[in-house]
Amino acid sequence: MGTKKIPEGTISRLFVYLREITALISVNIRTISSAELGNRVNLSDAQVRKDLGHFGQFGVSGSGYDTGELKAALERILGKDKTWNVAVVGIGHLGSALLAYPGFKQHKLSVVAAFDADTKKIGKKISGVVIDSIEDMPKIIKDKKISIGIVAVPSESAQEAAGKLVTAGVSCILNFAPTSLSVPDKVKVKDVDLSRELETLSYFLANKR
Amino acid sequence: MGTKKIPEGTISRLFVYLREITALISVNIRTISSAELGNRVNLSDAQVRKDLGHFGQFGVSGSGYDTGELKAALERILGKDKTWNVAVVGIGHLGSALLAYPGFKQHKLSVVAAFDADTKKIGKKISGVVIDSIEDMPKIIKDKKISIGIVAVPSESAQEAAGKLVTAGVSCILNFAPTSLSVPDKVKVKDVDLSRELETLSYFLANKR
Repeated sequence: MGTKKIPEGTISRLFVYLREITALISVNIRTISSAELGNRVNLSDAQVRKDLGHFGQFGVSGSGYDTGELKAALERILGKDKTWNVAVVGIGHLGSALLAYPGFKQHKLSVVAAFDADTKKIGKKISGVVIDSIEDMPKIIKDKKISIGIVAVPSESAQEAAGKLVTAGVSCILNFAPTSLSVPDKVKVKDVDLSRELETLSYFLANKR
Repeated sequence: MGTKKIPEGTISRLFVYLREITALISVNIRTISSAELGNRVNLSDAQVRKDLGHFGQFGVSGSGYDTGELKAALERILGKDKTWNVAVVGIGHLGSALLAYPGFKQHKLSVVAAFDADTKKIGKKISGVVIDSIEDMPKIIKDKKISIGIVAVPSESAQEAAGKLVTAGVSCILNFAPTSLSVPDKVKVKDVDLSRELETLSYFLANKR
């Protein structure tokens, strides 16, 4: 299906289409035209057709896309037709918040392991997940088929935590530490810098009338 | 200085320039050309000059920008020459993580108040901030000159929390609840949806070789 060369912008829009289609199905809408779908997500008819055209001719008819077929196709393309297992490293305030975060399940991500360097925390259970020792990481990552590691340790420990996750075999890292991680090319890192979200606010405050 | 009509893209890049200039100053670099600055942040010479040109002629000479002057000017433009006070509403795992988050101080934001609906939490101190009752919000927001409210409550309580923050007088809301908030036009809302950060990972996992 040649999904290798799809631009990042297209991928982001596919998630937008999937959310919209899911909402439409929940109100029993069975078909939608590309123009109408575009209209609902502030994109042109042409953009919608171009984006979906990357993936073949699914469910197009005179009356538009079949919403059920389109949803199934988008889920398959985006890897949302299965659940991915996740481990969190660093169970402080942020790690605990992530273990309790309801959004994971919605995105077909299942947090199945938690690791901390503090021996006093090991064996404790937070939001249903037992905290394990970092030494047991390689075995647990393998046994539980974990593909995503979340780094929620302080900056100074982040590279070490990432290195251990990579050695243990994860393919993706979501990094909450405000520092850059160095990993092999085959591993994907996504940085989440909460402070970046905040910085534009100061501009707004300084410039409001 | 006409900062009202500056495009959002320019504002984002000003923050990038400010970070780079701060790093240069820390290694005692006193001047930098627009080409060199652009090169360091992967932007063209012309883009740098255009962006900085919005704000007048600060510190340009034959040898480039004076890094000290440029830093001071950018801080002033971006509202980072003063500290803004912040309140967090909802002191569960996420709220507690935010109270402990080291990035705020770095961005000239000071968390000076915390609110929770749970009476058992009121009076407790987390990371140096006392948790107050939501009923006391109007007085505390006013007394402490708080301009930013962070919504860290569950989705079903988010609109109510936002409404109370607006009534109490905040100008900006950072919303961690995965739901849309309705606020008056003069209030700026920034949504932080942690699950959006995660969703592209499933595409990567589904399509890696």
